[in-house]
Amino acid sequence: MNLPKICSRVSSLMMLLFVFLACKNNEGLKADNNSVLENASHPSLILTAQGVKDIRANLGQIPIFDKTLQETKEAVDAEITNGIDVPVPKDYSGGYTHEQHKKNFVFMQKAGALYQILNDETYANYVKDMLFAYRDLYPTLPVHPQPRSYARGKLFWQCLNDSNWLVYTSQAYDCIYDFLSESERADLEKNLFKPFADFISTGNPQFFNRVHNHSTWGSVAVGMIALVMEDDSLLNRALYGIKNLKMDPNMKDNDGGFINKDGKAGFYANLEEPFSPDGYYTEGPYYQRYASYPFLIFAQALQNKKSELGVFKFKDSVLLKSVNALINLTDADGEFFLLNDSQKGMSYYNSALVSAVDIAYQFGGKNPELLSIAEKQNKVTLDDAGLSVALGLKAGEAKSFEKKSIELTDGPNGKQGAVGILRSNPLEVVFKYTAHGLSHGHFDKLSFALFDGGDEVLQDYGLSRYVNIEQKGGGNYLKENKTWAKQTVAHNTLVQNEKSHFKGEYGIGSKYHSNSYLFNSSDKNIQVASAKEENAYPGTKLHRTMAIISDSSLENPFVLDIMRVESLKPNQYDLPFYYLGQLMQTSFEYNKLNQPTVLGDSDGYQHLYKEASAVANGDNITLNWLNKNKFYSITSETNKSDAIILARIGANDPEYNLRHEPALILRKKNAKTALFVSTIESHGTYSPVSELAINAYSNIASLTTIYNASNYTAVKITLKNNTSKLFIISNENNDEQKQHKLEVDGRLIEWTGAFALVDFN
Amino acid sequence: MNLPKICSRVSSLMMLLFVFLACKNNEGLKADNNSVLENASHPSLILTAQGVKDIRANLGQIPIFDKTLQETKEAVDAEITNGIDVPVPKDYSGGYTHEQHKKNFVFMQKAGALYQILNDETYANYVKDMLFAYRDLYPTLPVHPQPRSYARGKLFWQCLNDSNWLVYTSQAYDCIYDFLSESERADLEKNLFKPFADFISTGNPQFFNRVHNHSTWGSVAVGMIALVMEDDSLLNRALYGIKNLKMDPNMKDNDGGFINKDGKAGFYANLEEPFSPDGYYTEGPYYQRYASYPFLIFAQALQNKKSELGVFKFKDSVLLKSVNALINLTDADGEFFLLNDSQKGMSYYNSALVSAVDIAYQFGGKNPELLSIAEKQNKVTLDDAGLSVALGLKAGEAKSFEKKSIELTDGPNGKQGAVGILRSNPLEVVFKYTAHGLSHGHFDKLSFALFDGGDEVLQDYGLSRYVNIEQKGGGNYLKENKTWAKQTVAHNTLVQNEKSHFKGEYGIGSKYHSNSYLFNSSDKNIQVASAKEENAYPGTKLHRTMAIISDSSLENPFVLDIMRVESLKPNQYDLPFYYLGQLMQTSFEYNKLNQPTVLGDSDGYQHLYKEASAVANGDNITLNWLNKNKFYSITSETNKSDAIILARIGANDPEYNLRHEPALILRKKNAKTALFVSTIESHGTYSPVSELAINAYSNIASLTTIYNASNYTAVKITLKNNTSKLFIISNENNDEQKQHKLEVDGRLIEWTGAFALVDFN
Repeated sequence: MNLPKICSRVSSLMMLLFVFLACKNNEGLKADNNSVLENASHPSLILTAQGVKDIRANLGQIPIFDKTLQETKEAVDAEITNGIDVPVPKDYSGGYTHEQHKKNFVFMQKAGALYQILNDETYANYVKDMLFAYRDLYPTLPVHPQPRSYARGKLFWQCLNDSNWLVYTSQAYDCIYDFLSESERADLEKNLFKPFADFISTGNPQFFNRVHNHSTWGSVAVGMIALVMEDDSLLNRALYGIKNLKMDPNMKDNDGGFINKDGKAGFYANLEEPFSPDGYYTEGPYYQRYASYPFLIFAQALQNKKSELGVFKFKDSVLLKSVNALINLTDADGEFFLLNDSQKGMSYYNSALVSAVDIAYQFGGKNPELLSIAEKQNKVTLDDAGLSVALGLKAGEAKSFEKKSIELTDGPNGKQGAVGILRSNPLEVVFKYTAHGLSHGHFDKLSFALFDGGDEVLQDYGLSRYVNIEQKGGGNYLKENKTWAKQTVAHNTLVQNEKSHFKGEYGIGSKYHSNSYLFNSSDKNIQVASAKEENAYPGTKLHRTMAIISDSSLENPFVLDIMRVESLKPNQYDLPFYYLGQLMQTSFEYNKLNQPTVLGDSDGYQHLYKEASAVANGDNITLNWLNKNKFYSITSETNKSDAIILARIGANDPEYNLRHEPALILRKKNAKTALFVSTIESHGTYSPVSELAINAYSNIASLTTIYNASNYTAVKITLKNNTSKLFIISNENNDEQKQHKLEVDGRLIEWTGAFALVDFN
Repeated sequence: MNLPKICSRVSSLMMLLFVFLACKNNEGLKADNNSVLENASHPSLILTAQGVKDIRANLGQIPIFDKTLQETKEAVDAEITNGIDVPVPKDYSGGYTHEQHKKNFVFMQKAGALYQILNDETYANYVKDMLFAYRDLYPTLPVHPQPRSYARGKLFWQCLNDSNWLVYTSQAYDCIYDFLSESERADLEKNLFKPFADFISTGNPQFFNRVHNHSTWGSVAVGMIALVMEDDSLLNRALYGIKNLKMDPNMKDNDGGFINKDGKAGFYANLEEPFSPDGYYTEGPYYQRYASYPFLIFAQALQNKKSELGVFKFKDSVLLKSVNALINLTDADGEFFLLNDSQKGMSYYNSALVSAVDIAYQFGGKNPELLSIAEKQNKVTLDDAGLSVALGLKAGEAKSFEKKSIELTDGPNGKQGAVGILRSNPLEVVFKYTAHGLSHGHFDKLSFALFDGGDEVLQDYGLSRYVNIEQKGGGNYLKENKTWAKQTVAHNTLVQNEKSHFKGEYGIGSKYHSNSYLFNSSDKNIQVASAKEENAYPGTKLHRTMAIISDSSLENPFVLDIMRVESLKPNQYDLPFYYLGQLMQTSFEYNKLNQPTVLGDSDGYQHLYKEASAVANGDNITLNWLNKNKFYSITSETNKSDAIILARIGANDPEYNLRHEPALILRKKNAKTALFVSTIESHGTYSPVSELAINAYSNIASLTTIYNASNYTAVKITLKNNTSKLFIISNENNDEQKQHKLEVDGRLIEWTGAFALVDFN
């Protein structure tokens, strides 16, 4: 990998010019974007001098920008009347001092922009007074009194939040740079910014010098202030990490993730490692959203200040691709799919995504589809990028962002599995066959979740945490995140012998990834994603195939799910389905316990209640339920003596941290090989206003595996209208050109490619 | 009570004229609304000949009407292409034959209106063909094969649904009356309508001859067809019931309600008995909604056809008042409060309410506030009333419907308690101190529910039924409705010795009602409703006072709840609070059980799991929770050794009929007198997008009863900002003019009226 180098000659020249320019009025500067003159003026990171001129010239004629500006002004004005409050740090997230310092950096950043745009010194003075209050406080601070973090900050309980502070505050400083006297700047830089940047970098190498969303924030924090201060030494540290540092490769952070196993560090490494060539961020979309702000804001600053680095072109424009990937990782309501640690409800309405969309629009060729997302967000960043978006929207250039079925590879080279997203209106299947996802990874190879028009149908539980809700463990990760949320059984995937994949050990799981077997969405009536996992349980091979099938006789498509297991020895296999909603009816009789019992001892099973159970008689079983006024059914093939468990989350939950939600668990005992075949349908609706139930029942008459061997698996699906289809997949050859033939039920089926769906009446 | 009599002379004259008019074209008729000519023409029930002319003249210029017409036309056109399907009856609700017959009457009614409005015989032929299909089928039918009802119908499993059919079909028949030949009409009347009307009346007196929503439908069905056929004998039966009928006064229906204890029957008795002078319907708003359609549609028909009866003036215009009452019984989203048997989600968007609002607008003096409800409904009835609303909306006359704090009395004379609704944005408290509510009543005297901006905070469970969802017990009442939903412990009210009010016996409960003690909403900062119940447990007096208190230092008002109990002997008292959402934190330590245990044996306790418990130490306890991104707290005063139980619904629920929702139960043991004092707050918000928690904690610092005796109760509420207020209520004298003084905490408090809220710092 060739990393661009900072040209120190240019930098020195700029410093010289800067001394000259700092004595002059900022106005009247005119230069092309790459010129030294432009780069040396302030603001120059996010807002630029030229951008400010353009914004001022357009004010009052750019509705979405004007609206955002007005809202921001009202919020900042209200905050200014509260006065400056820079308390001595004390609390965890959610607590008073934490929230106050957070508010401070957010409002400083906004006030800086308002000063530039509105040319009103009220805002500059607000930032200045706040900065000097921090200048007074910061040098007096020991590390934060709360001990929980592996890298305690000073203003906050973790360096991560201190880094947040510096990323935002750097922008505010850039905006009032010329408003301050040289001696004021020297004072701030010496007593606040430089020590601040040192503390979160050289002062906390275990935080700074790694590849992780934490160190992305750390690098960017140091890099942003370096750009304002024009400190090349700091900038090099930000871009490439602390050099010549010896770190224990086995050190772990609070989440159990390795700090730094292979010595990589710095902004570029953080960009190189976790992003796949498709722009998928290995920790998952929730953390990608969190990291996208520093990645993109710093890229924007670098582009404005050091365009010669060509940061947006890095790794085949991965930063720009990442924004598209992230939008594709949302459901119909714009909420992120829940891969690994993720809090429900986070969406592209988050301010980090407003920045991401605006930046990607401006620096990524003005893709008109991004405008439609900006339109939904109904706000823009108050800077050059926001202006571009506002002008684009005003010119009516927005096009609908078409989210399609897509496979997003994982791993720095795209070779560590993938996420497969199958979409067929109104359904979205999110199928996970990725790498582990660093310290935020869950042990759920080949798991999936199903969405219906933005509603979760078969859920991924997400994380066990109430972010920033202080009364729940200080708003931090709860112990149930490890004992429940990360465990395999908390997901819609296969569990062998009641043990999590990779024994639930990060050290093992992070060595492996699943492999995509095939992904094909070229025929909208039969879209297929198929993947294999051979390391989760040594000696056991898992092969799961998910398909969305449309049939002209059905209002909605349905999902076909085939989980194939081959092991060297007999095991128990559990396949849970976390359906959300109220059970309506089952096709099988179950015995509901008078008192729920705890399902197991460890690996998440200790958090499940067994509420009811049944023994299958070998027929198909159907579970029909109602959620948000829609009717759903799972239909599964069973073998005689398979167990069926109706479970509920919530056992061994002494502080009511868990949500008490239901699951259907299919269990096959003492089997070397096993095949779980299921369909999931969204087939009907209910209106509590008209009290009409429409299509309340499954459309599937029967589901039968009529061939299953190491070479092929063939499943016959018969609808209640008496038409049948046969789905066949080659289990060993995924060549799209390969011709196959197979005799099933006395009929010869011939097809090309790894799978086929044929009429089979 | 003086009931208006039908003038049989006028009626005979009309018949004569009718024969004449039937030979002439309908067009060109012009007469004033009360003339005999007008009354004798067709249509004349809901649509009138003049109305049709007016509608036709306005088409294309009345947006809401045009839109409804277009939607109706599209729906009917689509249905017509399906052809006529009149199957032999077989199923319960939710099943095919049930839903088909239901669809048929709905579409016949619509097609009839379309024929008149669009003057297109396609629609008349559709109705005609359908009617003759029924004429062929009906005479062949035995009673419906499904045996569950106390009054089995022929088309449907219960006469109730047969009556629905006739109410709608009568309107269709009226619309195509002149389209049919005299012999066709005679055929239909002789072979279909007359036997149909007889079967649901004289054929099923236990259904027809009573005061109940069933018999309202029955009376109206017979009355509607009587008006079309101009059959005075049938009309008299509809208005006054079957005369000289001997019925067993102890007979009960499927819901356990008495069929007819006092011999009252017919439309007027059904109007007289269940409606209070305020227009509150004793069964509660869910059934009022159901009954409002027949009440109002028949009143409209009577007014159009027999205006001399003055039906809308009956009982001081109770029908018109009932529409206002019903709208006042909805939350901020227009969903009905859950009093007695009620399914969640039913709202004023239901078609019955579209009719009710339009009819009340036209016949009730064109109240412009009703137009704002019609605007939200975004549809109108396709008749004269709908035209009036459409014209009113077009003229811009709509005014916002202001739902206020209101006490709605119960009982025919308004002397059987009341429902008190306290509103202070965003909170709504619904406090129930009514009569039993006939067979749909629940055993929950002095219970309450709390809503916050349309969201349930402390819920009423509602009914245990999934209406028209066939897979759940045929869509009918489930056995858990009786064993759980109706029981006292399923509500937010006091349970003594784990037994329901009135032993859970309808025969006892229906004899009594609670009494309003005071209702005062004149001061928006302290609104109070207070009521007493002295019969639920013989020897025990319950007195509950609910207040909504606003304080300028708080963003939202809060609820104060004082439940005072006096008994002749020591008892155990439980007070449950069914909070909806996820528990965040409690101020007390609790012991969560490894396995939930069943809380009790009977009276609904068998359906509750005990999940955790605590013993109070005499301090205030606070339970803080999160629901739909809002933070709530209950704070309660406790005595040492009070028990606190964290419970969950769902025990002894073998078919997953119940929702597994949580409750906090406060328990005082072995006490003659008891006082439960609590505040409930909606104090904060959470955003999963910004991940900001605002005001996550209760604002109440302490809650202390500083005086409690038979004469007065005084509660001191101290906020976290260190200000205190004292709420005092006189327990024995509710005179608004009475002057009181009381020394508490060494301070003399003087006030006028039954209660006071004073600063007490």
